[in-house]
Amino acid sequence: MRTLGIDPAVRNTGYALLEGDHTNARALDYGVISVPAKIPQSGALEAVCTGLKNLITKWEPDEVAVEGIIFVQSYRTAISMGAARAAPMIAAASHGLKIYEYAPKKVKKAIVGKGNADKHQVAFMVRALLKLPETPPSDAADALAIAIAHLQSSDPLKASMLERKQV
Amino acid sequence: MRTLGIDPAVRNTGYALLEGDHTNARALDYGVISVPAKIPQSGALEAVCTGLKNLITKWEPDEVAVEGIIFVQSYRTAISMGAARAAPMIAAASHGLKIYEYAPKKVKKAIVGKGNADKHQVAFMVRALLKLPETPPSDAADALAIAIAHLQSSDPLKASMLERKQV
Repeated sequence: MRTLGIDPAVRNTGYALLEGDHTNARALDYGVISVPAKIPQSGALEAVCTGLKNLITKWEPDEVAVEGIIFVQSYRTAISMGAARAAPMIAAASHGLKIYEYAPKKVKKAIVGKGNADKHQVAFMVRALLKLPETPPSDAADALAIAIAHLQSSDPLKASMLERKQV
Repeated sequence: MRTLGIDPAVRNTGYALLEGDHTNARALDYGVISVPAKIPQSGALEAVCTGLKNLITKWEPDEVAVEGIIFVQSYRTAISMGAARAAPMIAAASHGLKIYEYAPKKVKKAIVGKGNADKHQVAFMVRALLKLPETPPSDAADALAIAIAHLQSSDPLKASMLERKQV
């Protein structure tokens, strides 16, 4: 079972490819798709969508997991986050893949043990859980955390807590 | 000059292809890309993106115009509208096309003469301006109105009012 975890953003999209199940997963690939600020939003979304499609073609994941949106500061942010989320949705659907969403707090709770864990704690735990040789950059760490949470959601003990939702 | 106007939505995306300039435009094609409610949001966005790409391949527009988002009832709506807007952005950018945004009220003001015009007035005026044999469905009428507004934005008399913004 291969899972693609994505932390959606217009400019810095974290991604993570995991292979295995919730008891034993290893990272095949992870990183950040970055798009310079000078590229208009339409070009950035297209670059993210194409980048994710290329990763799907290369790694052939079985399922895709993204972070849900809970807290937003403004309507402007909500519109922008909605647009950012659309790129992985379109990339996944174009390959016929199902895409699941997990609330950020539930992901942190599942990985670190507390819903208000900070980025460093998430990165630290992700590194430990996957025995990575280095601490991943924070956007990639979030994507790794989402992918781990997705695997854990098939574990009866964690399933109810993680509340997977197909989008 | 060919313009593709789009009224973005997750389920019913209006589109309109116009040829000509702001003094003399004719409709080459218009309609609505509809996606059934049983398709998940990811699949719907992908279907809209693919549908728009097919229209771009067929009609080879020079520029794309979409409705901007001004009024939203809730964060949930804002996120959903943000996602809906991403599909035309990705479709346009994948063909190297520039995409411009116009505020809905400015479009209505430009077409009907008042910013709070209702859907029937927009459809009526669009039919009259383009000499269409029938009144277009309302989502398509909105797309036709956006395409007309885009052409008018190159008219010095209307340009300042319409405030085109590249996205």
